[in-house]
Amino acid sequence: MNPLVVVTGGTKGIGRAIVERFLKGKCDVITCARNNKDLSSLQQEMNNLYTESQLFYKTADMSVREEVNGFVAFIQSMNRPVMVLINNTGVFIPGQIHNEEEGTLEKMIETNVYSAYHLTRGIIGGMMEQKKGHVFNICSTASITAYTNGGSYCISKFALLGMTKVLREEMKPYQIKVTAVIPGATYTDSWQGTDLPQERFMDSQDVAESIWAAHSLSPRSVIEEILIRPQLGDLD
Amino acid sequence: MNPLVVVTGGTKGIGRAIVERFLKGKCDVITCARNNKDLSSLQQEMNNLYTESQLFYKTADMSVREEVNGFVAFIQSMNRPVMVLINNTGVFIPGQIHNEEEGTLEKMIETNVYSAYHLTRGIIGGMMEQKKGHVFNICSTASITAYTNGGSYCISKFALLGMTKVLREEMKPYQIKVTAVIPGATYTDSWQGTDLPQERFMDSQDVAESIWAAHSLSPRSVIEEILIRPQLGDLD
Amino acid sequence: MNPLVVVTGGTKGIGRAIVERFLKGKCDVITCARNNKDLSSLQQEMNNLYTESQLFYKTADMSVREEVNGFVAFIQSMNRPVMVLINNTGVFIPGQIHNEEEGTLEKMIETNVYSAYHLTRGIIGGMMEQKKGHVFNICSTASITAYTNGGSYCISKFALLGMTKVLREEMKPYQIKVTAVIPGATYTDSWQGTDLPQERFMDSQDVAESIWAAHSLSPRSVIEEILIRPQLGDLD
Amino acid sequence: MNPLVVVTGGTKGIGRAIVERFLKGKCDVITCARNNKDLSSLQQEMNNLYTESQLFYKTADMSVREEVNGFVAFIQSMNRPVMVLINNTGVFIPGQIHNEEEGTLEKMIETNVYSAYHLTRGIIGGMMEQKKGHVFNICSTASITAYTNGGSYCISKFALLGMTKVLREEMKPYQIKVTAVIPGATYTDSWQGTDLPQERFMDSQDVAESIWAAHSLSPRSVIEEILIRPQLGDLD
Repeated sequence: MNPLVVVTGGTKGIGRAIVERFLKGKCDVITCARNNKDLSSLQQEMNNLYTESQLFYKTADMSVREEVNGFVAFIQSMNRPVMVLINNTGVFIPGQIHNEEEGTLEKMIETNVYSAYHLTRGIIGGMMEQKKGHVFNICSTASITAYTNGGSYCISKFALLGMTKVLREEMKPYQIKVTAVIPGATYTDSWQGTDLPQERFMDSQDVAESIWAAHSLSPRSVIEEILIRPQLGDLD
Repeated sequence: MNPLVVVTGGTKGIGRAIVERFLKGKCDVITCARNNKDLSSLQQEMNNLYTESQLFYKTADMSVREEVNGFVAFIQSMNRPVMVLINNTGVFIPGQIHNEEEGTLEKMIETNVYSAYHLTRGIIGGMMEQKKGHVFNICSTASITAYTNGGSYCISKFALLGMTKVLREEMKPYQIKVTAVIPGATYTDSWQGTDLPQERFMDSQDVAESIWAAHSLSPRSVIEEILIRPQLGDLD
Repeated sequence: MNPLVVVTGGTKGIGRAIVERFLKGKCDVITCARNNKDLSSLQQEMNNLYTESQLFYKTADMSVREEVNGFVAFIQSMNRPVMVLINNTGVFIPGQIHNEEEGTLEKMIETNVYSAYHLTRGIIGGMMEQKKGHVFNICSTASITAYTNGGSYCISKFALLGMTKVLREEMKPYQIKVTAVIPGATYTDSWQGTDLPQERFMDSQDVAESIWAAHSLSPRSVIEEILIRPQLGDLD
Repeated sequence: MNPLVVVTGGTKGIGRAIVERFLKGKCDVITCARNNKDLSSLQQEMNNLYTESQLFYKTADMSVREEVNGFVAFIQSMNRPVMVLINNTGVFIPGQIHNEEEGTLEKMIETNVYSAYHLTRGIIGGMMEQKKGHVFNICSTASITAYTNGGSYCISKFALLGMTKVLREEMKPYQIKVTAVIPGATYTDSWQGTDLPQERFMDSQDVAESIWAAHSLSPRSVIEEILIRPQLGDLD
C-alpha cells in the first residue's frame, strides 16, 4: 500500500504542487479546500496523470474549528497510518497593523495558525504511536521578516514558525520529523494580474520539490528549516 | 503636566515594576488589570510613595475585545496625549502543543497578542498625529526559543515579536519608536512556591530599568530589541 | 560535456559524500585535500563506481593563501566553466575562548573562512560572466548557536554564514545562487571512537542529498538556507 | 577607589562617547588608540570635565597581536581589578566580497575580531578570579544583516557577534556578564562629508547611554543583546 500523505489547501498554488509531487512519488494523498468543485476537478486531473496513487478529498474550511474536526474524522475513517502531514492552508490579506480592517488579524490567525494547530493535534497521536511521521508547516519569509505591507499576515506567520519549532522539540523522542518551509514570493493565483514579471516569483514546483527532498532523507536526519526565495530576492 | 504612560497588567510582576519606575520618573501612569481590589491597593501604595505623579486605573480583562474598547475609552476620556504604551498583559499556561487542553492556544493568543494588537490600534492614531510616542511590547525569550514546556505560550510570544517588528516598520515615518523587550525568567507571583533559588530569576526591576533607559534616549535612536536573561541563563 | 563542480576537502565526511553525489549525478568534480594519498585512493574508488563522470584533484592546504591560488590555477587550467562551487573545507578544534591555546582562532579562521573567501573570489568571476552558477558554503549549527565547547569554531562558522549571506546579496543580479548549508553533528572520521551511539549523528549522505536537491531546482528559486540536524537534535 | 573600565578605540565616535559616559559615572577609564596626539588631547579634555575620575591611555594598534600584549601589560601594571571591558575598536572598509581589494577581509578580521579576542583573553582571567565583571562587544547591525556594500565588514561583525555569544555561555558560571551591543548607523568621523542628513544617524551618546544602563542593572540580570537603530532605520 502507498504511504498516506495529508496536504491542506491542495487545489491551488504551493498546495497543489505538493499534492502532485507526492502523487507522482507514489504516495496516496488526502487534501481539503473550501471549494468542492475545485477539489473534484483536481481529483479528476490527478487520476488521469497518476495511476499508481490515489487522491482523496474532503471539502472543509480549515479556519473553522468544527470543520477541522470533520477533516480529522474523514482522515481517520480511512483507517490507515498518516506518514506525512503538510499544513499548507493559508490566506494573505495585505494591510498594516495600525489601520487594517477590524477582524483581519483574527481571520489570519484562525486560517494560518489554528488550522495547522488543531489538525496537527488531531493527527499526531497516530504518528506518535507508530513512532514515525513527518510534519511540514508552510511558513513564509513573513515568518522571519517584517514586511511593511504584511501587517497581520506576518504576525500569523511568525506564530506558525514558533509552533513549528516547539513541535519539533516535542516530537524528538517520538522519531517524528518536523520541518519549517519558509518560502518567499511564489507565483500563485493570488498574484494573477500583477505587473511584476513572472521571473520575480518562484515556481510552486520548486517548493514542492524541496519538500519532497526533505521527506526523502534517512530517518536519522531532519531538515528543520528550508529558506527558499526567488533568485532576485524579496519583492520590493 | 507629566507625560502620560499606559501600562497593561500593572498590578504584578514586570508590569508593576514598570508602573513604579515611570511614576518615580515623574510620569503619570494609567494601568489596568482584572482584579479591582489589586488595582485599588496598588494606587494607594503608589500614591504614598510618589507624590509628584499620578496613577489611574481601570478594571479590564484585556483578553476580551470589548474590555479593550472600554480601556481605550477610559484613556481617551483623559484627553491627554499618550507618550508611552507598554503592552505587558500576558498569561502563561504551561503545556505541550500535542496534548495541552483544548482552548489553551486560543486563550494565550487572546491574552498575549490580541490585547496588545487592539490596544495599540486604539492608541496609535493619537501618537501618529502628535508624531511622537513609544510602544514597548513585553515579549519573552519564548519569542525566540522553542521551550519544550512552552507549548502555545511560545506560539503567542513568537506572534507578539512579529507584531512588534511589523509595527516598528510601519511607525518609522511617524517618529514613533517601537521596542521589543525580550526577558527571560523573571521572579514574579507565578513562580511563587518554586524550588528554584531566587537568583535563578531576574528581578522585575531590572526589566523596568531597561525599559526606562530605552525610553530616555534621544529622538534619533530606537532600541529595537532588548534581550535580557538571568545571569545563569534560561531555566532548564 | 558534464557540468563541472568544485568541492573542497573531498576525501572525508560530508565533502566525500558530496563528491560522490555529484559524480553519481553525472557531474565532473574537482576536489582538493592536504593528503595526496587519500586523494588518489578516492579517485580510484570513484572511477570504479562512476564511469560516466570524472574526478580530478589537486593536493592543497586551503588554509594557506598560496595553495588556494594553486588550486584556482589548477581549476582554470581545465578551461571549463565551473557550475557549482562547494566550500566544504573546515577544521574543528574544540575549546573555550577564554583558555584555548594561542593560535586556535587564527587557525580556524584561516581554514574555515579564508579558504572559502579566496577560492570563491578566484572562481566567481567566471560564474559572473556566464551568468550562471551556484555556491554552497558548508556552515554549521555552530553558525547560529553558541556551543560552550565550540569556542573559536563558532566564531569562524558565524563568520562563514555572514559571508554566505553577503555573497547571496552580491550575486543576485548575476543569476548566481548562493546557499548556506547548516548541518548539525554528522558522523565523520573526527567522531571515530566516540561513546555516543551512531544514531545521534546524521549520515553525511543526507547532507549531500540535500545539497543535490537544492542544486536541482529551477533557475528561479534559490534555497538560501538548509538547516539540518540529527533526529534527536544537538549533542549535549 | 573608582571602578576601572577598559575601552578600546576611545578617541572617536562611539568609543569616545563611552569613555565620557563612564568618566561621568565616576569610573576610571583606560583607553587606547593608534594616534598618540588624539589620546593626549582626549585626556586633557576629559580631565577638565570630570574631576572625580581619571582617564589613562596607551598608544596601541589593536590589530597587531604584540600591541594587544602591550596594552594588556599596561592595564595589568595598574594592579587594579578591571570591572568592565568594552571592545570597541573597529574599522569599516566598504566593498564587496567578490571584488574588494586583496587583504580587506584579513584587515577587518584582525582589527574587529582578533583585537577583541586577544584583549578579552588577556583580561578575563582577572575577572574570573574576582567572580565579577562585564564585557561589552560593540558589534553592528552588520552582525545580523547582509549589507550589499558591507562585504568583509559583515563577515568580521558576524564573527564578533558569534564570539560574544560563546563568551556569554562560557562566563555564566563565573558571574561575569557579556553583552552584545548591535548599533546601526551612528554619526561619527567616518561619516563626515556625507550628503545624508544628520538625523539619519544615531548620536553616539545614545549608544553610550544604553551601555551605561546595561551596566547598571543588578547582578542577577544580563542584557545579552541591545539592538539599536536610527529612528528612520538602516541607511539605504
